[in-house]
Amino acid sequence: MKIALDAQGADLGIAEVVAGAKIVAAEGIDIVLFGPQAEIEDALGSSRPANIAIVDAPDEITNHDEPATSVRARKQSSIVVAAKAVAAGEADALVSAGPTGAVLAASLFNMKRIKGVRRPAIAVILPDGRGGRSLLLDAGANVEVPAELLVQFAHLGAQFSARVLGVANPRVGLLTIGEEDGKGTDRVVEAGRLLADPDNTHGFNFLGNVEGRDITNGSTDVIVTDGFTGNIALKSIEGAASAVMLALVEAIKSSTVSKVGGMLAKPKLLELRERVDSNTTGGALLLGLRGVSVVAHGSSTRAGIAAAVRLARDSVAGDVTGHMAAAIAELNEHAASTADVTVGLANDA
Amino acid sequence: MKIALDAQGADLGIAEVVAGAKIVAAEGIDIVLFGPQAEIEDALGSSRPANIAIVDAPDEITNHDEPATSVRARKQSSIVVAAKAVAAGEADALVSAGPTGAVLAASLFNMKRIKGVRRPAIAVILPDGRGGRSLLLDAGANVEVPAELLVQFAHLGAQFSARVLGVANPRVGLLTIGEEDGKGTDRVVEAGRLLADPDNTHGFNFLGNVEGRDITNGSTDVIVTDGFTGNIALKSIEGAASAVMLALVEAIKSSTVSKVGGMLAKPKLLELRERVDSNTTGGALLLGLRGVSVVAHGSSTRAGIAAAVRLARDSVAGDVTGHMAAAIAELNEHAASTADVTVGLANDA
Repeated sequence: MKIALDAQGADLGIAEVVAGAKIVAAEGIDIVLFGPQAEIEDALGSSRPANIAIVDAPDEITNHDEPATSVRARKQSSIVVAAKAVAAGEADALVSAGPTGAVLAASLFNMKRIKGVRRPAIAVILPDGRGGRSLLLDAGANVEVPAELLVQFAHLGAQFSARVLGVANPRVGLLTIGEEDGKGTDRVVEAGRLLADPDNTHGFNFLGNVEGRDITNGSTDVIVTDGFTGNIALKSIEGAASAVMLALVEAIKSSTVSKVGGMLAKPKLLELRERVDSNTTGGALLLGLRGVSVVAHGSSTRAGIAAAVRLARDSVAGDVTGHMAAAIAELNEHAASTADVTVGLANDA
Repeated sequence: MKIALDAQGADLGIAEVVAGAKIVAAEGIDIVLFGPQAEIEDALGSSRPANIAIVDAPDEITNHDEPATSVRARKQSSIVVAAKAVAAGEADALVSAGPTGAVLAASLFNMKRIKGVRRPAIAVILPDGRGGRSLLLDAGANVEVPAELLVQFAHLGAQFSARVLGVANPRVGLLTIGEEDGKGTDRVVEAGRLLADPDNTHGFNFLGNVEGRDITNGSTDVIVTDGFTGNIALKSIEGAASAVMLALVEAIKSSTVSKVGGMLAKPKLLELRERVDSNTTGGALLLGLRGVSVVAHGSSTRAGIAAAVRLARDSVAGDVTGHMAAAIAELNEHAASTADVTVGLANDA
């Protein structure tokens, strides 16, 4: 197993990505770093592990560049060269802390979509309050999507949950504004109708409608939504968690007695912060591609980079791409066989 | 000042609402309770304050009833009788812990909309991590809305923020998935274009696009979105805050030392929980009506009911209805005067 790791794109710089590479290389994962060779060598220093290779690709696509245009034009950028290496089979998976849009474009243009997948989705792993975790998708790849895409996202997410996160028969919920049927936008209501057909939910347990609080309360393994709603839900959750942690620190500091209490509880509070921290989940997954692509947070520390690489390794080991392809093929076959029944109803593209 | 308070609808029952009424009656607010007279009298007991009146209206619309149909059909239900009393000028504002949809329907059908307001919105007050608070609307009244309604919501929210929450020149943000112009759905992008015209933002400071984390980070006073997105963001935030608080308790309980620390910090942690708790914010506001209508949480304790009544009182005292009417009239006048320019562009209804 060999992971293509973009050395550029992380806010903390190339040295931090290289430090992350060393952590996972020491665990036996082969790494190929893509970026400016001299800088990477500098960061590696004299203790360069034998299972870390370098491909020189100094050009960097940043947040200031329009993703699709830049990816098309700048073939020598580290993210494009790395994605091409994975597409060519020279590495098994891509990991980058670069701009999500650029990683998505580079992965989509080079690895291509799984047959039958109309659009890839961004999936994120979120911790709940009970030590568990859930998968939210789409977290921002597609602003608005028709009902059939929400159904595809359900399958992509369910396969990831089952094959990588190890959840047997994952519970999949459709994110909307009420538990009753008929709540939400026309697209969501139609997706709920399609998912009510058991032939459309092989491999998972469809819970029906779920609400915002179900994302983090441990009731649901996979939460399906469009990229506009999913991105806002994700950032709302991150913001609320930060606000509570900030208020917690302020509350503890506000009296001498509670300050002493806070010092005693500090190790456990730091553990909690780490669990809430996005660095520990390993980043976002691009699902629906013919290959594994992981977007680490831009703010990733070396631990975050290492977690993202492990997530990529687990995705390859679980053959999530193959399982997603099989699930989508079966779904589309069923849709085709019932096309005479659903045509007209299902055409909201 | 007299507040019409629906005695029914709260999960904790009539006695809890009556206990809330007593708290605010003792503060000098006149209350009229609507519900089953005998039960209310029972709950009041022998210590009935002189400034609490009762109107017998035993029928109760619950979560199991379709809101609009029930409100139209059941004229003797407490929520409908209370809303009619406010519409008739017999009370100054309505407060109910009943189902949001029923309170909205009863308020809309009886109080009617402010002239020029196309749809009322549900607004909620959220605490941030720094002791401040922000207003999010629409939190669920309208699933999808055209751009012009988002502009109206900006004005309704800004007037509430200024007149009731006391924020001078409130900062208003448009909720979407990126800070750059052009990010989000077509409706949101068009709303951003309309709000970029200073003639459309009298009375507030338009920040442009904001993201999910801005709802709770203290950067924004009013966050504008459609009811689908707003409801999901709200419940995602509530869920995340609960998850962190739950994880906090678990973390503290997980070792003897941190348990001692937790006991020392307990008073401050309880203060924090209370601040995060939705009971302290007083509930949701229905904005855009010709009268003040507050929806207390169904789970409200007596303190939550009292907070909702105070919010209603402050809304009346600040004449938020009059100020919203003036702002919408001015906005619509500007829109009419530029109709020859914007027609076609603005018509996405």
